[in-house]
Amino acid sequence: MKTFIAEFIGTFWLVLGGCGSAVLAAGIPDLGIGFAGVALAFGLTVLTGVYAFGHISGAHFNPAVTIGLFVGGRIEASAIPGYIISQVLGGLAGAGILYLIASGADGFSLSDGFAANGYGEHSPMGFTMASGFISEVVMTFMFLIVILGVTHKNAPSGFAGLAIGLALTLIHLISIPVTNTSVNPARSTSQALFVGGWAIEQLWLFWVAPIMGAIIAGLVYKYLAPNKD
Amino acid sequence: MKTFIAEFIGTFWLVLGGCGSAVLAAGIPDLGIGFAGVALAFGLTVLTGVYAFGHISGAHFNPAVTIGLFVGGRIEASAIPGYIISQVLGGLAGAGILYLIASGADGFSLSDGFAANGYGEHSPMGFTMASGFISEVVMTFMFLIVILGVTHKNAPSGFAGLAIGLALTLIHLISIPVTNTSVNPARSTSQALFVGGWAIEQLWLFWVAPIMGAIIAGLVYKYLAPNKD
Amino acid sequence: MKTFIAEFIGTFWLVLGGCGSAVLAAGIPDLGIGFAGVALAFGLTVLTGVYAFGHISGAHFNPAVTIGLFVGGRIEASAIPGYIISQVLGGLAGAGILYLIASGADGFSLSDGFAANGYGEHSPMGFTMASGFISEVVMTFMFLIVILGVTHKNAPSGFAGLAIGLALTLIHLISIPVTNTSVNPARSTSQALFVGGWAIEQLWLFWVAPIMGAIIAGLVYKYLAPNKD
Amino acid sequence: MKTFIAEFIGTFWLVLGGCGSAVLAAGIPDLGIGFAGVALAFGLTVLTGVYAFGHISGAHFNPAVTIGLFVGGRIEASAIPGYIISQVLGGLAGAGILYLIASGADGFSLSDGFAANGYGEHSPMGFTMASGFISEVVMTFMFLIVILGVTHKNAPSGFAGLAIGLALTLIHLISIPVTNTSVNPARSTSQALFVGGWAIEQLWLFWVAPIMGAIIAGLVYKYLAPNKD
Repeated sequence: MKTFIAEFIGTFWLVLGGCGSAVLAAGIPDLGIGFAGVALAFGLTVLTGVYAFGHISGAHFNPAVTIGLFVGGRIEASAIPGYIISQVLGGLAGAGILYLIASGADGFSLSDGFAANGYGEHSPMGFTMASGFISEVVMTFMFLIVILGVTHKNAPSGFAGLAIGLALTLIHLISIPVTNTSVNPARSTSQALFVGGWAIEQLWLFWVAPIMGAIIAGLVYKYLAPNKD
Repeated sequence: MKTFIAEFIGTFWLVLGGCGSAVLAAGIPDLGIGFAGVALAFGLTVLTGVYAFGHISGAHFNPAVTIGLFVGGRIEASAIPGYIISQVLGGLAGAGILYLIASGADGFSLSDGFAANGYGEHSPMGFTMASGFISEVVMTFMFLIVILGVTHKNAPSGFAGLAIGLALTLIHLISIPVTNTSVNPARSTSQALFVGGWAIEQLWLFWVAPIMGAIIAGLVYKYLAPNKD
Repeated sequence: MKTFIAEFIGTFWLVLGGCGSAVLAAGIPDLGIGFAGVALAFGLTVLTGVYAFGHISGAHFNPAVTIGLFVGGRIEASAIPGYIISQVLGGLAGAGILYLIASGADGFSLSDGFAANGYGEHSPMGFTMASGFISEVVMTFMFLIVILGVTHKNAPSGFAGLAIGLALTLIHLISIPVTNTSVNPARSTSQALFVGGWAIEQLWLFWVAPIMGAIIAGLVYKYLAPNKD
Repeated sequence: MKTFIAEFIGTFWLVLGGCGSAVLAAGIPDLGIGFAGVALAFGLTVLTGVYAFGHISGAHFNPAVTIGLFVGGRIEASAIPGYIISQVLGGLAGAGILYLIASGADGFSLSDGFAANGYGEHSPMGFTMASGFISEVVMTFMFLIVILGVTHKNAPSGFAGLAIGLALTLIHLISIPVTNTSVNPARSTSQALFVGGWAIEQLWLFWVAPIMGAIIAGLVYKYLAPNKD
């Protein structure tokens, strides 16, 4: 039960912090934090969450991570449903609190996107569905490769949270213009449910592509790892 | 006594560095550091303060942190008054030195805000009191959850300063537009006393909401922690 | 074989992440990440790669690093060809995936540079060949000095990935305007092969200068090191 | 002798990287790194230098640091002259290489400031001499307090380089607008000798104020430290 509460709070933090920085602070003229600030915010939600909750739940905060860790041989199949349900509910709670805060300023509208993920005409810079799909597969693949590598017992102890959090920052520095960056189906689901319409129609991609990338990473890393762990 | 001097200097640094970067460097055309730079500065005051003073005072620098640590069972009630008095005095000293430096340039005026916290018409982007209250409760809640988690004896040793400092950076990346971000009554008090008027009238929120968030975090984490510590 | 796959994936990540952030996200009006965001992205590819792959391949991801480590006495000559071939192929794969993603938006053109390195009229800010040559020699020299220093057995264990990654960020903060920053012949080669023409004509400098800097660093550090290691 | 070479290279890197990022990359329209990027660059020169050279020379790279460490009881008086001479020469070499690179682009002129420190009409934002003096004393005081605290034997091992480097970033985030930030007489001297005129006339402040701040910090920390070390 503590595991699921930790996953709930961690994913709540990821969505509130990452999407919150995008909705509240990215586009303010002159002083706004821009895509680089949003990238930093997403990464720091995970960096802080891993150090705070890693010793309780393993700190996945992301269904693709949970599945990639299973394929990589790190967790049991029986743990998957509880993790994913906790993550999706936590993301929804984060989006709810963000909505409460954001709607307290003039001019707020969910139709501005609420940091939902999209492709085609809903990609921030108009990238096609194919570009978005490739980007999400490859970025999630590399996210899981980093996660599996830095949590291997041969890697220097303690640095996993730093490397994983900054890997997520890096992924956003590259791919926000393409899809607003998901690599995390829970984060996509929470924003899509608030935005509705096109965001729900496009949501499938942000489950399929990240999970595909995570599965490939799990298989590759099992071969690559220095030894079973 | 050394504990209180450490808290005084640490909170002095938090206010001088965080509010100082906002007042002196945020809004310079073209070259200014913006909200993202201010967010980094606030976080780095705490990151550097924790590594420098953590072994002397525990490095709270914030009345809400002190109270949250008490509720979470980490410090004794008898230590609270000395911590909070040291923090408020340190913050005032930081604001005083900042005033001395900032007033040495043409065009400086306390009526530009001096980085004080506010809501409604004094929110940087016009967020309501309710938005500000929710934001301060939730951000301080998460700040304390991170602090309690990363200083638990099961967390990797040494990384607490990194995670706590960057948690404060993250909190500012999200919420500067809402309230200018407090999560720290000492930081709010020092700026309000210099600005006066509206800033003092609104100061109550920046004591009540952060402390409320910290108390909830202390209670939640006591349940969540892997074991008594 | 695992060593070469790790070098392939790591250099793939360096090119996709570093050049990808430049091509996809640097120049977007108002929200773009700018040169500072690109600098951070390059550094984080290496930071994450070192923590993920350091225990498999040593995490060079760069022919100049491989040669500098050889001159500094850390690897055998026989390992060099396999490392460099893996790195060049990995960089090409990264550029290929980036091309697939980037070409999915209107207005993309390889003739905008594709983050290739250049001097003279192909320097981002018009720096001469001499400036570019000096910059690449000195920046690679310092990169290798840092690498050799932080991986020395007297340096604090575990922090090498942090210091090496952030050294690459620093190098880009300084020298993107001069040459778009190489210090890595594999990264230069992949982009030049896609761009063709001038980029291939200028490619020699981005092999000669970084390797020259790396060799000098290896010789200097052998003298400077506290003891043989 | 190795100590002095390490101090020479480290201060060379500090000036080339910090002042280099300011001269080459800060002010480029739209893509430039701004004051925040320069702040990050200065900090990363020291972060990387401490991890690379800390085990050789202690990694001062700054006459004020050397003097503060002496007052704080960490080094012998007899070591001071060698350190300071190495630092000043290293800074000059860094400025020389920067001059070679920077002068390879049209429009470069030393009269644009070459990142020299100044006050009054030579302060970036027109701050008075008194503001500049207070800022340099207080910022160097806090820099040394952090350095003495994080290198105390009770502080977590290995994190000193991170905290010291990011302290210098923080100091620049606050005070670049005031004096262009010195806190380091060697860095001020190298730029002043290239710029000449006003920069040499104002150079006294950037020796007196940082050293005054460092001496006060050494005395304060000796009282504050948990025990003799």
